[in-house]
Amino acid sequence: MKVKVSRKAHFNAAHRLFRKDWSNQKNEEIFGKCNNPNFHGHNYELIVSVIGEIDEETGYVIDMKILKDIIKEEVEDAFDHKNLNLEVPEFKTLNPTAENIVVVIYNKIKPKLDPKLELEITLYETPRNFVTFSG
Amino acid sequence: MKVKVSRKAHFNAAHRLFRKDWSNQKNEEIFGKCNNPNFHGHNYELIVSVIGEIDEETGYVIDMKILKDIIKEEVEDAFDHKNLNLEVPEFKTLNPTAENIVVVIYNKIKPKLDPKLELEITLYETPRNFVTFSG
Amino acid sequence: MKVKVSRKAHFNAAHRLFRKDWSNQKNEEIFGKCNNPNFHGHNYELIVSVIGEIDEETGYVIDMKILKDIIKEEVEDAFDHKNLNLEVPEFKTLNPTAENIVVVIYNKIKPKLDPKLELEITLYETPRNFVTFSG
Amino acid sequence: MKVKVSRKAHFNAAHRLFRKDWSNQKNEEIFGKCNNPNFHGHNYELIVSVIGEIDEETGYVIDMKILKDIIKEEVEDAFDHKNLNLEVPEFKTLNPTAENIVVVIYNKIKPKLDPKLELEITLYETPRNFVTFSG
Amino acid sequence: MKVKVSRKAHFNAAHRLFRKDWSNQKNEEIFGKCNNPNFHGHNYELIVSVIGEIDEETGYVIDMKILKDIIKEEVEDAFDHKNLNLEVPEFKTLNPTAENIVVVIYNKIKPKLDPKLELEITLYETPRNFVTFSG
Amino acid sequence: MKVKVSRKAHFNAAHRLFRKDWSNQKNEEIFGKCNNPNFHGHNYELIVSVIGEIDEETGYVIDMKILKDIIKEEVEDAFDHKNLNLEVPEFKTLNPTAENIVVVIYNKIKPKLDPKLELEITLYETPRNFVTFSG
Repeated sequence: MKVKVSRKAHFNAAHRLFRKDWSNQKNEEIFGKCNNPNFHGHNYELIVSVIGEIDEETGYVIDMKILKDIIKEEVEDAFDHKNLNLEVPEFKTLNPTAENIVVVIYNKIKPKLDPKLELEITLYETPRNFVTFSG
Repeated sequence: MKVKVSRKAHFNAAHRLFRKDWSNQKNEEIFGKCNNPNFHGHNYELIVSVIGEIDEETGYVIDMKILKDIIKEEVEDAFDHKNLNLEVPEFKTLNPTAENIVVVIYNKIKPKLDPKLELEITLYETPRNFVTFSG
Repeated sequence: MKVKVSRKAHFNAAHRLFRKDWSNQKNEEIFGKCNNPNFHGHNYELIVSVIGEIDEETGYVIDMKILKDIIKEEVEDAFDHKNLNLEVPEFKTLNPTAENIVVVIYNKIKPKLDPKLELEITLYETPRNFVTFSG
Repeated sequence: MKVKVSRKAHFNAAHRLFRKDWSNQKNEEIFGKCNNPNFHGHNYELIVSVIGEIDEETGYVIDMKILKDIIKEEVEDAFDHKNLNLEVPEFKTLNPTAENIVVVIYNKIKPKLDPKLELEITLYETPRNFVTFSG
Repeated sequence: MKVKVSRKAHFNAAHRLFRKDWSNQKNEEIFGKCNNPNFHGHNYELIVSVIGEIDEETGYVIDMKILKDIIKEEVEDAFDHKNLNLEVPEFKTLNPTAENIVVVIYNKIKPKLDPKLELEITLYETPRNFVTFSG
Repeated sequence: MKVKVSRKAHFNAAHRLFRKDWSNQKNEEIFGKCNNPNFHGHNYELIVSVIGEIDEETGYVIDMKILKDIIKEEVEDAFDHKNLNLEVPEFKTLNPTAENIVVVIYNKIKPKLDPKLELEITLYETPRNFVTFSG
């Protein structure tokens, strides 16, 4: 009898989509205006969902205050008001597409949770584009 | 070929998180400000989703007017403008966490539906915290 | 390691729920005010989700520009500012309930995608009523 | 010391923009796809705001239940699931643009209110287009 | 050349509408289910808007971090997870209608601001009911 | 008898708050993490409102298609997926705070409108922070 509990969070960041090993022309062709060498940015909206049994004593799947603190440490402190390409180690060699960012966030939060809990991450890059990853 | 049809609803209620069998100190420690003995409250936003085959005649999985009436009787009339701890029988001995509320709502609506239909309930306790249960 | 990428879109249309082979009385009884012979209408909000592996080169599951173009051709150009019953061939004999519309949209978009990709469509008929279909 | 109190409501309707006294070509030129002779439609979202002094006894500017009933009678019952051009008398000769609809709604609600109260109406034709009128 | 800068915040609270000097019957008649003696509650969403000239040096009307701190101290710390009737001094004798709450919030924030700045407060009691006060 | 018509639009951009004529320390002190020399970014949501008389012939204050084109040319083409500090001439010497951006947008759109029309611009820098300017 599993329940999914979800918490919304957000961070603002600059990024650029490109590959160093591609020509400017190919980067332009594939990534279009997202390849702007001066960067652009987003208000990333994040939903972190944890799936597990309800603890009979507390009535919680996970204490939201604990989940909120994990999100703050692993995502907000690491990504907020940052340039993803230049300042976030995970994207030094990984293209910061929404798909890659959501996998990175999953991999940062998962080890902080009790292994019995499943995890699902949804990331809105804009109000109209979003991605979901659950391992 | 199943389709999920969803209907939003809402109710406002007061509640308090605590266990009678715990000391004040332990309640404070685990439930923090949610343990305020004078209660606090929420605008609970509810999504009731029903999964089933499309009826070939009507083009409906379920008539939304019927679903709307079930939600009104089982949830809105029972919970709206109520104190969950003091006035809703299900929470006389059950801590009204979002997780427990979503399971109670599921258990109230499920028997009203054709057994061939699956049910999923999502409950927003605040715009940033929500839970989902599907049996 | 699959990621779901989603794109929102929208279209406005008129429609009417009824069956030609039913009496006026039965149409009225089953479809109520949705059966108005002069039509009514909606701002349909659409979420098109594509599930697949992340391409290691681009970091994309699918290029959003390509997905956006498919949605434009198959849905927006075909449905926007139209009368679904009178002007959209799929609903000449099919009742344009939200359930039937979401299946029609799925069937129009699926063949345009790489067969390795899964598809899920969510359609909001109103801000409070929506349907989801994933094949 | 005036306070503005606002209530959201909504209705779904079909409409068409055109003038009988114009040629088809001119209607097409000015109103584009909104001139579709088979109609299209919208989920109109409505905000009705009433501005006045707080009643010292009740702490209300206006009882929301009374305002809700006025909106139901004057707007929802009159417009919901209707074809504005064919079924709503005000638009028999008046083009149902968002601007004209918002003025019609203002003129229907204003006489139902205490003359000391000011009125402002906001009408969303789509989530991205809306109009406001305050007399 | 004035600009209005706005900041959203929120708090959850329990309340009850009633007047001690009225009979139960009159309270019931005027305040209906909002008069529940066991309280009900809301997620209050707040918009604090400050109107003033742009400071030429900083480009700010007011530093948002300062405004955020004022909102935290004057509103969130005072009202969040509280019972407005029992625990917030301003409502010991004042009925906590949305209209009265928005005036109380205005009166708490205004003296903390530079007197050259104008203030406007919007308070959502539910997603469909809200009030605005600007002195 | 004036009506306000509003249109939503959006653009994504990178920016940094700082003044060249200030020391690093002072920039840090005043602009905090918004002063990150590697930039950060936002999904800017824009509401462009035009106030004027309804044209009796068309029923429009302004043709939304015309307004949409003005917004595209003056704002979206100029700012979207750009670095405001490095690539947008208006911010070469002007700090791109939300307040300054909203005034720049006002000044770009106003001359494109009939002088009889009033203009109001609202700009969301994040879902919780926004600014409004009306000349």
